[in-house]
Amino acid sequence: MGLSTAFTELFGLEHPIALAPMGGSAGGALTAAVSRGGGLGLLGSGNGDEAWLARELPVLSGEVAGRPWGIGFQTWAVDDGTIARALEHGPRAVMLSFGDPGPFVERVRGAGTTLIIQVTDLEEARRAVDLGADVIVAQGTEAGGHGARRGRSTLPFVPVVVDLAAPVPVLAAGGIADGRGVAAALALGAAGALLGTRFQATSEALVAPATARAIVEGRAEDTERNRVLDIARGSRWPAEYTARTLGHPFLDRWRGREDDLTAAPHARREYQDALAQGDIPALPRWAGEAVDLIDDLPSAADLVGTLAARAEEALARAGGR
Amino acid sequence: MGLSTAFTELFGLEHPIALAPMGGSAGGALTAAVSRGGGLGLLGSGNGDEAWLARELPVLSGEVAGRPWGIGFQTWAVDDGTIARALEHGPRAVMLSFGDPGPFVERVRGAGTTLIIQVTDLEEARRAVDLGADVIVAQGTEAGGHGARRGRSTLPFVPVVVDLAAPVPVLAAGGIADGRGVAAALALGAAGALLGTRFQATSEALVAPATARAIVEGRAEDTERNRVLDIARGSRWPAEYTARTLGHPFLDRWRGREDDLTAAPHARREYQDALAQGDIPALPRWAGEAVDLIDDLPSAADLVGTLAARAEEALARAGGR
Repeated sequence: MGLSTAFTELFGLEHPIALAPMGGSAGGALTAAVSRGGGLGLLGSGNGDEAWLARELPVLSGEVAGRPWGIGFQTWAVDDGTIARALEHGPRAVMLSFGDPGPFVERVRGAGTTLIIQVTDLEEARRAVDLGADVIVAQGTEAGGHGARRGRSTLPFVPVVVDLAAPVPVLAAGGIADGRGVAAALALGAAGALLGTRFQATSEALVAPATARAIVEGRAEDTERNRVLDIARGSRWPAEYTARTLGHPFLDRWRGREDDLTAAPHARREYQDALAQGDIPALPRWAGEAVDLIDDLPSAADLVGTLAARAEEALARAGGR
Repeated sequence: MGLSTAFTELFGLEHPIALAPMGGSAGGALTAAVSRGGGLGLLGSGNGDEAWLARELPVLSGEVAGRPWGIGFQTWAVDDGTIARALEHGPRAVMLSFGDPGPFVERVRGAGTTLIIQVTDLEEARRAVDLGADVIVAQGTEAGGHGARRGRSTLPFVPVVVDLAAPVPVLAAGGIADGRGVAAALALGAAGALLGTRFQATSEALVAPATARAIVEGRAEDTERNRVLDIARGSRWPAEYTARTLGHPFLDRWRGREDDLTAAPHARREYQDALAQGDIPALPRWAGEAVDLIDDLPSAADLVGTLAARAEEALARAGGR
């Protein structure tokens, strides 16, 4: 039994499931939990902040029980030194998302580390193949958090990337939060699924309790993809990336007016004031469209096996067994 | 063998595949071909234009070989008389899309005809369940042609509608153009898939040869969803519905400026002039994001069986058989 794919074989995993390396919230405990559960945990290192890694890596090492794990970066935010320092900790994989992975490929492969590249359109997919990615993550616009401004939806995007990348294994990302979604990813030809929002709502995630509750209670129709909150909070995210979040007072005030907001320094001061007064959450509440399917706060370690078992059932049922 | 679901059992179909009743292009020959191929053909009657039906229904009757078929309407564009006249032709199903189906439910059910309601968000899905739909089509924003302004993506939308509607069978629509997409729909818990753009590029579709070629050559990244072409051509489609189309000169000129276009009668005259001079195609080229997966012009009758066979293979492969 079990769902064996080129991805599970590559890493020796029990289940074709990966943790999206969500910057800040995919910490050491969550990464270790997903790996212990039989999937591939990917630490959400973001820009490779050394203080954050110094705190999270020991947690990860202490809890991962010898299972394979990796580390993910926002490509636009890192340099060669960031990657080199991360490699010293012995991740089995490095995942690069959002930006040109070209400058870092040699460093990762030179260390014998598996290279995972996330793509959001066909141009990025072709580039990832040309660069020799070992695994490609095809992310649809349903995904929570950051993604491309002109997104592709996961269902029609994944099979095209699968055809383009073959025989390189592809993971589907965006809009997947239960076993049926994992099953659909495999049916589309993907070798596994990478889940973010679902793993935010687990006991091991590094999120504020109010954020976890907001995900459990949130509805997909309340999510939207834009740049408003990145501009308001003065984020360094480049302008070509939007983020899908749950509702927020600043979205109601500035929706569709990113250019006006950029030109309104007083609005950014208001955001800081609202933060200081506790009127808005400390961070945007990044969440994907699959938030409708999330109604509990399980342990991520247990969740991986549950997702895989439900996926197997969904495939058996769909195939008429 | 074969993929048996609540949808195939309801109609006695060989395959869990339906034709989207695309107004104008899903004519009698295409509807009959899909039904003969073992799926459910749905005639694209749009507003129930009597001259169009008088031409297409005899073709359908002559070619459908006793297989079940249905007829689809744009709900906002019809009245009770339209539905009553259609029912005289003995369709096995009536499908209502875009608008409140409430006023027509009694008429359809009173005739003993199966009622299919298409939904694009959870509010519409709840309403369809309350109205007693026999089948619900959950359409994602990937779909070609018309859909809701604030679309949901198919992959995360379908399982939520499946849960909400159970035990009513749900078809997945939007972004599906090959066997893997059909397989994914079933994995998500749907009882079948409804395909539009894929069936436009077949020998039986009522589309201009240049449109069929544009679909074969088109790329998903060239499609976009908005109201520009409906406004420019003076369409009666209500403002809450956008349409996904391939590129068009008027999109390049008016993208993102629907309000300006509405207030610019000279632009609508220019559209008419461009039409008269053959500078633009006779109709917008409606196409969904799955257009990337379409690279041939087969017979729709053959295509249904091919889609089902590939779906079965995809499920077997995904399930590790």
